[in-house]
Amino acid sequence: MREAYHDQLDSIFDDLAGICRRVETAVSLATHALMNGDAAVAERVISGDVEIDVAREQVEETAFDLLTLQQPVATDLRTIVAALRMVSELERMGDLSVHVAKVARLRVPDVAVPDEIRPTIERMAAVAEDMVGRVCEVIISRDVEAAIALGRDDEEMDGLRRRSFAELLSDDWTHGVEAAVDVALLGRYYERIADHAVSIANRVIFVVTGHHPAALAEQ
Amino acid sequence: MREAYHDQLDSIFDDLAGICRRVETAVSLATHALMNGDAAVAERVISGDVEIDVAREQVEETAFDLLTLQQPVATDLRTIVAALRMVSELERMGDLSVHVAKVARLRVPDVAVPDEIRPTIERMAAVAEDMVGRVCEVIISRDVEAAIALGRDDEEMDGLRRRSFAELLSDDWTHGVEAAVDVALLGRYYERIADHAVSIANRVIFVVTGHHPAALAEQ
Repeated sequence: MREAYHDQLDSIFDDLAGICRRVETAVSLATHALMNGDAAVAERVISGDVEIDVAREQVEETAFDLLTLQQPVATDLRTIVAALRMVSELERMGDLSVHVAKVARLRVPDVAVPDEIRPTIERMAAVAEDMVGRVCEVIISRDVEAAIALGRDDEEMDGLRRRSFAELLSDDWTHGVEAAVDVALLGRYYERIADHAVSIANRVIFVVTGHHPAALAEQ
Repeated sequence: MREAYHDQLDSIFDDLAGICRRVETAVSLATHALMNGDAAVAERVISGDVEIDVAREQVEETAFDLLTLQQPVATDLRTIVAALRMVSELERMGDLSVHVAKVARLRVPDVAVPDEIRPTIERMAAVAEDMVGRVCEVIISRDVEAAIALGRDDEEMDGLRRRSFAELLSDDWTHGVEAAVDVALLGRYYERIADHAVSIANRVIFVVTGHHPAALAEQ
């Protein structure tokens, strides 16, 4: 019985990693749609989000069954509660990818991101996608060092966000209000995706060590 | 023993309502700081957020103690897990109030919101604050009808968000990129505060009825 129980606990983390991979794909496709003004790919991200929602519900059901039937204590309890929180965050990351895709769709056949600021936004998207990919690995490996390293990437994201503001508020900005608002909101969405990746990494640290990383207080 | 246990369960909801009231105050003060360019009040919101974080940690500890020591099942289990999620959302609402306060502080001695768009942003702030106030009541009363009603207010918020975009993207907008970006992000922050209020109301519905409201799937 205990054996089957730990198999179920491991299987929740496999399911979380699976959802995380779907989110990684959503971030990647949303960025592709954004940078290329590709309506079909944007639609794919928007309509595909329901699969992430369904997968979340399945993880929640499994977690509740484990809590109800197995009455776990200590580490196992902490792990299941952490899983419930992680799956909520993964779902939000999916929603944020949908927000990016919707900005892309709104501007088709144009591209929402003007050429001059493209390198900054591309880098934000790349950092976000890389952080999502790495947090998927962390969910599987429960590697505390790798989880801690994710927090450092978040600093690059903060710097990119500041740079994007400097660019769109500079006198050289000739693309008007609409593009500036798009870029500001896109920056916010990618930043939040990165924040959630760090938060999930911190929950893995908590599950493994029993301690909240100091960084968690700053989320 | 069971008596003391249910007292503790009730006391978690009292604590949640207390945090909710702090959040309501933070939203109100952040809006005051924003609309009046009041740096001192903005600072109060920013520095006061740590109290919300500490209160969240206390609720989490109590919830974990209940889960570990009492091994609750069914309704009680659902209630404690819901409380853990609600407190995370309340903390986020506090963070979003801090974001509003930081926009206010950044523009002091000016006011970030230009006069023409002030009525729309004031209304967004009022709707958000009202929704926070009402969700505090719902946490205490567990009144399902009142919880459902909150979802309807969210539609007004969506309409206000659209109106704010129409205003700042119109040819009449003379306040440039910086003010437009501020207004777009402020709209996002108030909208997210409202979203979280609806989400908490939906969690109360789930705790009372055992069913997720259909609206929850749309969060």
